[in-house]
Amino acid sequence: MRPSGRAVGEMRPVSIETSVTRHAEGSCMIRCGDTHVLCTASIDERVPPWMKNSGLGWVTAEYGMLPRATHTRGKREAKNGQSGRTQEIQRLIGRALRACVDRPALGERQIIIDCDVIQADGGTRCASITGGWVALRLAVNSLMKAGLVRTDPLTDHVAAVSCGIYAGQPVLDLDYPEDSEAGVDGNFVLTGRGRLIEVQMSAEGATFARDEMSTLLDLASAGIDTLVAAQKTALV
Amino acid sequence: MRPSGRAVGEMRPVSIETSVTRHAEGSCMIRCGDTHVLCTASIDERVPPWMKNSGLGWVTAEYGMLPRATHTRGKREAKNGQSGRTQEIQRLIGRALRACVDRPALGERQIIIDCDVIQADGGTRCASITGGWVALRLAVNSLMKAGLVRTDPLTDHVAAVSCGIYAGQPVLDLDYPEDSEAGVDGNFVLTGRGRLIEVQMSAEGATFARDEMSTLLDLASAGIDTLVAAQKTALV
Amino acid sequence: MRPSGRAVGEMRPVSIETSVTRHAEGSCMIRCGDTHVLCTASIDERVPPWMKNSGLGWVTAEYGMLPRATHTRGKREAKNGQSGRTQEIQRLIGRALRACVDRPALGERQIIIDCDVIQADGGTRCASITGGWVALRLAVNSLMKAGLVRTDPLTDHVAAVSCGIYAGQPVLDLDYPEDSEAGVDGNFVLTGRGRLIEVQMSAEGATFARDEMSTLLDLASAGIDTLVAAQKTALV
Amino acid sequence: MRPSGRAVGEMRPVSIETSVTRHAEGSCMIRCGDTHVLCTASIDERVPPWMKNSGLGWVTAEYGMLPRATHTRGKREAKNGQSGRTQEIQRLIGRALRACVDRPALGERQIIIDCDVIQADGGTRCASITGGWVALRLAVNSLMKAGLVRTDPLTDHVAAVSCGIYAGQPVLDLDYPEDSEAGVDGNFVLTGRGRLIEVQMSAEGATFARDEMSTLLDLASAGIDTLVAAQKTALV
Amino acid sequence: MRPSGRAVGEMRPVSIETSVTRHAEGSCMIRCGDTHVLCTASIDERVPPWMKNSGLGWVTAEYGMLPRATHTRGKREAKNGQSGRTQEIQRLIGRALRACVDRPALGERQIIIDCDVIQADGGTRCASITGGWVALRLAVNSLMKAGLVRTDPLTDHVAAVSCGIYAGQPVLDLDYPEDSEAGVDGNFVLTGRGRLIEVQMSAEGATFARDEMSTLLDLASAGIDTLVAAQKTALV
Amino acid sequence: MRPSGRAVGEMRPVSIETSVTRHAEGSCMIRCGDTHVLCTASIDERVPPWMKNSGLGWVTAEYGMLPRATHTRGKREAKNGQSGRTQEIQRLIGRALRACVDRPALGERQIIIDCDVIQADGGTRCASITGGWVALRLAVNSLMKAGLVRTDPLTDHVAAVSCGIYAGQPVLDLDYPEDSEAGVDGNFVLTGRGRLIEVQMSAEGATFARDEMSTLLDLASAGIDTLVAAQKTALV
Repeated sequence: MRPSGRAVGEMRPVSIETSVTRHAEGSCMIRCGDTHVLCTASIDERVPPWMKNSGLGWVTAEYGMLPRATHTRGKREAKNGQSGRTQEIQRLIGRALRACVDRPALGERQIIIDCDVIQADGGTRCASITGGWVALRLAVNSLMKAGLVRTDPLTDHVAAVSCGIYAGQPVLDLDYPEDSEAGVDGNFVLTGRGRLIEVQMSAEGATFARDEMSTLLDLASAGIDTLVAAQKTALV
Repeated sequence: MRPSGRAVGEMRPVSIETSVTRHAEGSCMIRCGDTHVLCTASIDERVPPWMKNSGLGWVTAEYGMLPRATHTRGKREAKNGQSGRTQEIQRLIGRALRACVDRPALGERQIIIDCDVIQADGGTRCASITGGWVALRLAVNSLMKAGLVRTDPLTDHVAAVSCGIYAGQPVLDLDYPEDSEAGVDGNFVLTGRGRLIEVQMSAEGATFARDEMSTLLDLASAGIDTLVAAQKTALV
Repeated sequence: MRPSGRAVGEMRPVSIETSVTRHAEGSCMIRCGDTHVLCTASIDERVPPWMKNSGLGWVTAEYGMLPRATHTRGKREAKNGQSGRTQEIQRLIGRALRACVDRPALGERQIIIDCDVIQADGGTRCASITGGWVALRLAVNSLMKAGLVRTDPLTDHVAAVSCGIYAGQPVLDLDYPEDSEAGVDGNFVLTGRGRLIEVQMSAEGATFARDEMSTLLDLASAGIDTLVAAQKTALV
Repeated sequence: MRPSGRAVGEMRPVSIETSVTRHAEGSCMIRCGDTHVLCTASIDERVPPWMKNSGLGWVTAEYGMLPRATHTRGKREAKNGQSGRTQEIQRLIGRALRACVDRPALGERQIIIDCDVIQADGGTRCASITGGWVALRLAVNSLMKAGLVRTDPLTDHVAAVSCGIYAGQPVLDLDYPEDSEAGVDGNFVLTGRGRLIEVQMSAEGATFARDEMSTLLDLASAGIDTLVAAQKTALV
Repeated sequence: MRPSGRAVGEMRPVSIETSVTRHAEGSCMIRCGDTHVLCTASIDERVPPWMKNSGLGWVTAEYGMLPRATHTRGKREAKNGQSGRTQEIQRLIGRALRACVDRPALGERQIIIDCDVIQADGGTRCASITGGWVALRLAVNSLMKAGLVRTDPLTDHVAAVSCGIYAGQPVLDLDYPEDSEAGVDGNFVLTGRGRLIEVQMSAEGATFARDEMSTLLDLASAGIDTLVAAQKTALV
Repeated sequence: MRPSGRAVGEMRPVSIETSVTRHAEGSCMIRCGDTHVLCTASIDERVPPWMKNSGLGWVTAEYGMLPRATHTRGKREAKNGQSGRTQEIQRLIGRALRACVDRPALGERQIIIDCDVIQADGGTRCASITGGWVALRLAVNSLMKAGLVRTDPLTDHVAAVSCGIYAGQPVLDLDYPEDSEAGVDGNFVLTGRGRLIEVQMSAEGATFARDEMSTLLDLASAGIDTLVAAQKTALV
């Protein structure tokens, strides 16, 4: 019944390949089916002006999509400026990752997570969060190995997955054909221990009931378990 | 325990004054405590290019804040461009209102909802949605009175309220002092019949449990009933 | 003969309501007929870089119009940038107010006057100057009450009114229907004692004689007296 | 008493050299003392969209200053965008020239006047208007010679001069050292027959009396006669 | 003597992997040592307005670099606009590829080549041209296979390589450590048959003699043979 | 055979008039046939932040074209931003001039060369370099005369000329009619002693052979001798 033939609670195959670029302090390529996102973490010993002498660290994110990551070519944002959608997504990624960062433990430095979509098939913001956490983990590991950070500032895993109501049925991990048809969809960011960080459910030209929301949250919880397992495998 | 002395499930006083400006096809000033938003609805018989000859109507929104609506003066966006936050909010308002619009019934025209914050004390995006719906209702009424629209294109009321966890306790309708301290907060958009349109729960440097989310949703549902009643009163 | 039925030297009803917003150090809503402008004054203890250590104060202004303040909706400047007209107006407001400011007496601080047009029916720049001065007066009063300023830095009232030649006849205080038809119009900024600060007379596709200019200036002087009286009433 | 040793009613030497560039339909270099402005007129058979099928012509202007036209180098506007001052000036030039254009006689086409300041010593906007009119005259002549325009659309000469109160004394045609000291200055645009087009008197941190304004206007009228004579000489 | 231990005329290992993204009509990942560029070709049946009804095709290029492609993180151009360097490079890529395009044979359509640098170690513009040609070749093949284009519009291979004078010695295919030290460097674009398309030699704070230029051109010719061979291997 | 009737190796008449503006520390108007460029040099004792305390001087350039310098009026870059072409040209001018600057001898200050095209007929970037060097020379002379610089920081003359293949034949110093037809053209920057600084040869929809390049370089060398002689004459 789903275009891909998947069961309602079945995720796309996930893989996370680490250390894929030479220069970044942490990096991975995350592949959720045909959605591929390159995530890098860059350590910057300078913090933004409003944080100076606070003793606190900061994690922020930027998001982009290559013009031909999509079915039809999109405009290059370097020529047109970042869209509202792009800004919304990168604010979400940063907020999600910061939920499990102990800022005093990180110390007064900044880690910038760049999430660049190489190929898109739905769910790019969720893949960015899940992959971005792995890049962040690797960068923090390097700081700890170098003795610059003593206590681990990452308090838990962070991962994200989308759910939605497609053809009247709640389904997990929407791909692009589902996403473009679903009247209701949501993004769920959870920790490794199952705590919620962000819930965004949204209807376009439709509405939904509270028990549907509950079902979607059940699906999401199961999906997050799979993603956290993939993070752990990648980091072994 | 709340800075304002309100009970956990107590909203600020709400008032909606209609037809406050002379030129707009629909308008109101909504006041939720010290948050005051001027909402206007403008009918434009031209639709965006990508909608031409579709026979479908469109509702969109723009949001702004006067520089000194806030405690300390903010930069004027006309000089600096719209922030990511502003764009995120105006996308939300438009999406929320469209959820209860029958686009073929509206006919091929556009209604633009402008929400301008005159004074801010938390919850401006929610007030914008609740007040914006009233402005939209008035503009649609004028179209129906003029015989330009036959079937009512508004399928239900739309209203929004914020909730959050303040000092460890779930509370309804956060004002600015609460909002700036709360680690978890959310915005809930519902219809008059209690269907969900948008749920946005978000933690900054914190996480929350599923049952807390459930409590917040209960609080929100009660708040929405109050707001829909205020909309009805205003429109009599 | 005038669309509104007013006599040639008759102004629209003027009212100035003070302290209309909660956060600003000074504020008023000025209503000249159907033109309504919200004026706020914000004190900023930091001055622009080029004024540092000069010991001199500064007064500047910003101007905006809500998109649906006008008969047909205008574009939001936050999305499109400030127009040349807007920049011209806000430079005028600042220059006009500074003419009666004793900058050493104000001390090294800045007062920013925001003039936001809530509803427009001609003469918005003049209303902004007249109302802006009231907001400035209130902010300066607060500085004096707090003992931060000893000598009153405001040396006189400042008010402004438009005049023009409509249907061949010099008239005072043009409203929008007159303004859009008049080939010649002007803005006159005067002090409470009748000194001139700014005279801008301008013809679009027309010219005028020197004695017509003199008549307009007579009308303006009378109008300014009315406006200064309204300022005094508002400040009692 | 004036830094240049000129009498109070004495203008700087004026010269207008025509046809100084090869490509423009009309051009001149106007020199008012050390202020040198290159003015070109370009005929464009396409009118702006909002004028299509009106049968009316249009005249507009753009203004710029080379970065090192001034005593100290200014920022290049191509890198920083046009300042408010630049936009204000170019709006004034276009409006001034249009006052003596018979738009139906010009026919549905546009003439763009570019005024670029090669060297500045005060009074660049006035020189731009006086020189811009000569460039416009030459371009219109070429249209008439080609038989594209039958009735002369220019109804009179247009010229402009500045006056101000320097060291307590009204003086004509301010140069930069005077302009930067004068608390009151004004720009006067008149026709060849002595009708007024634009009067802009402005005080920065000062005020002025009505009889001072009258004196300045007398000075300006005399100055305009000199400028119109120079235009006539140049066009022989 | 070279930091990498390469001989003066020795290139870095080159590989070109084709069809690396799912959506583009042509794509490849080109790797020249540690410089990795993803090149995609997108067919657009609409041409730019100035080419309409010309019957001619067009090939253009855009270039970008992921923020952490480099040793230290660069600013994201989507937030800051394209730099002069970026614009210069993308103009070069487009011009280089068009040199071997038979525009009437291509027919009135556009092919856009996106070159996005995933990892940088010098020579990114040259890799973009060499890889961009492969993506273009694949997109043209798909047009020919679909019968939309009859005669092959690509008249020859196009490839590019850099050379420069490092530590006093002419060397081929500079990597980043060499590039940042070389006072003279150049980029050479040639066809498969050895014709020149573009020669750019440039000195920063230095000069060079004509026979040095000749030596660099010899080195470049040899390098181009290697690159064209790699293109052929990739396309088998 | 050339549109102008010139021989293949014949340059347009060149003249360089110095000290043409009153404020700049160095200036000239260079005329290469109908291409006229005003070049000014401005000394700025402040250097860019990244050069502070280096003890090194800097030379940079900006380039612009008046809107009606060309056959048909171009858009004003102050309204539209600098094009990629403009940025490319000004980067080239700065790089070319710096090749013969002894930066420690100049001392920690900046010289900004502004090249503004008053009239264009091909070869504007080359004229800018040749004229820009004269303006630089004059500014440096003034520094030396004032005793601010002891050792001459200019190590040689710098001049530039274009060549191209027009109607199948290599020709020197292309004018606009040739430039717009030539499939291959190049810009050559040389020192007074004949060393190369920059070679840019570029084909649009064409290719060229190595011996053609050699012929163009011969032509250019001869042209540079003429230009350096003109620089010397101008500076006597």
